[in-house]
Amino acid sequence: MEMTRRHALAGAAAIAAAPLLPNIPAQAAAPLADKQAPSFYRYKVGDTQVTVVSDGKNVFKLEDSFIINAKKEEVNEALEKAFLPRDVFTIHFAPLVINAGGKLIVLDTGNGPTAKANSKGANGLFIDHMTAAGFDPKAVDMVVISHFHGDHVNGLLTADGTPAFPNAEVLVPAVEWKFWMDDGEMSRASAGRMQNLFKNNRSIFEASLKVTPYEWGKEVAPGLLAVETPGHTPGHTSYVLSSGSGKVFIQSDVTNNPNPFATNPGWHAFFDQDAAMAEKTRRRVYDMVAAEKLQLQGFHYPFPGLANIEKDGNGYRVIPAPWNPVI
Amino acid sequence: MEMTRRHALAGAAAIAAAPLLPNIPAQAAAPLADKQAPSFYRYKVGDTQVTVVSDGKNVFKLEDSFIINAKKEEVNEALEKAFLPRDVFTIHFAPLVINAGGKLIVLDTGNGPTAKANSKGANGLFIDHMTAAGFDPKAVDMVVISHFHGDHVNGLLTADGTPAFPNAEVLVPAVEWKFWMDDGEMSRASAGRMQNLFKNNRSIFEASLKVTPYEWGKEVAPGLLAVETPGHTPGHTSYVLSSGSGKVFIQSDVTNNPNPFATNPGWHAFFDQDAAMAEKTRRRVYDMVAAEKLQLQGFHYPFPGLANIEKDGNGYRVIPAPWNPVI
Repeated sequence: MEMTRRHALAGAAAIAAAPLLPNIPAQAAAPLADKQAPSFYRYKVGDTQVTVVSDGKNVFKLEDSFIINAKKEEVNEALEKAFLPRDVFTIHFAPLVINAGGKLIVLDTGNGPTAKANSKGANGLFIDHMTAAGFDPKAVDMVVISHFHGDHVNGLLTADGTPAFPNAEVLVPAVEWKFWMDDGEMSRASAGRMQNLFKNNRSIFEASLKVTPYEWGKEVAPGLLAVETPGHTPGHTSYVLSSGSGKVFIQSDVTNNPNPFATNPGWHAFFDQDAAMAEKTRRRVYDMVAAEKLQLQGFHYPFPGLANIEKDGNGYRVIPAPWNPVI
Repeated sequence: MEMTRRHALAGAAAIAAAPLLPNIPAQAAAPLADKQAPSFYRYKVGDTQVTVVSDGKNVFKLEDSFIINAKKEEVNEALEKAFLPRDVFTIHFAPLVINAGGKLIVLDTGNGPTAKANSKGANGLFIDHMTAAGFDPKAVDMVVISHFHGDHVNGLLTADGTPAFPNAEVLVPAVEWKFWMDDGEMSRASAGRMQNLFKNNRSIFEASLKVTPYEWGKEVAPGLLAVETPGHTPGHTSYVLSSGSGKVFIQSDVTNNPNPFATNPGWHAFFDQDAAMAEKTRRRVYDMVAAEKLQLQGFHYPFPGLANIEKDGNGYRVIPAPWNPVI
């Protein structure tokens, strides 16, 4: 039915009685798209450009042992309160590409190519997504590592075991390096997860990477100040990225997914090596960013992971920054 | 400095004393990227696929007259509480592309090509972003319009004034059509904004569009139920999109940006034609979606605009759904 304003004015009653669904001839159905948008997001901090690049997600069954000082039912209640499904937990991963002072910097590297294959593309997507964002891994000048867990370091290597960022200096926390490369620490580490972490780190750093340790309290790259936030691992590092009057706190793993770890900062996850110290660090950092109204970038926050924090009872509420569709 | 684990074990002290910043030779600085990621986002509702497609944003100076029953300082306080800048207001726009029952459906069309030129690409981006998402405007079967404001209907036409979706039936709310096409209503409308809206709508619908009015309480497209939500305009329409056990409430303009309009549902914006009715509709809808824990899609929410709602004092708190990087 071809209809213009004049038709409407001439016969509004007839139009109101017209069939509701137009009679469109049968045609090929539109196929469903099979891919999410390539998940990257840009913002400015002063003159510095940050691109958040999703490495994907890992969804796993919620086990009783996931949080060592809370019951599974309490965790489920916290998930439900956040409108998340019960009985599963989703970890998100968001490395950064930072363009600062003429240097291209990668901050943490995601789960890497083996995880990409094993997860059937659910994670290990950092290189794909950074390429979609227009960055060439060969153009990266520096890779800064926050700590030595697989979801942060495994992307340092390609599937062939060669450097994924062949022209980059790899900057690692000095405390972290000392701990994981110390044979005494390795010999005292418990079997299973901790032993595997030692082995994985040694395997990664056996490769021909140009590694330089960095100290807390100093700039590790232009405008990127390394901040001591231990507990999750002994050398776990966060950052303050500054340029001009712009500033953002890059928390690394001070919390994992803010639901439930920002809302319940006293909960101790199995993956925090010194859980009491991790909690102390968490409360100190979140009290600080809340008081200073400092934006925070979270590696394990849902993409794009830029947010403000406010105190809420004994925990913290996360207010995601609104997406800016035009930079 | 080439360093492996063995070097480190051999000379940890020397390494710790190494200069913090690696001595990288001068080279061409990495250029800053000049474009945000093309802002589209996909999710499933049962067997139906929704793609949220950003049309961009409009940032304007906060005027005293923006909210007719709140002082500018109160609005500024609400913005500040939400970690948004004072003295400006950002409107986001997010039309949808819905693939349901073999039909490709566009739901609202954004600000259109004239706005794109006038805003220098800050909005009017729907066609660009839907194309980036892989959709051909010529493949669209139906365009469903929620109400007759320019940011919803102006994208119906190209810059040449021809239909932007040349093979689509355009489905409009019957009440909305009757109101805006009624010469008596037009003659009684106040000068300025309301007269301009009448003129704009008549100009748009003078074009050779295949227009069909639809009624509230019925399916306007496969699984897309039209819901009566008047106030913002006389025929303003929301939707429940259902497939299998999946369901989402598509609110259109029941609120504009949730900050401050969901947090302060009693505030009356100048753009609500019957502000008292709009408030009544807003509270009814938000009470319902909060009680039913129904996910809500907001046209003026920050992209991607999918969220849950909970009551918070006299208003509502919006909890954005976590971004899913892999569908």
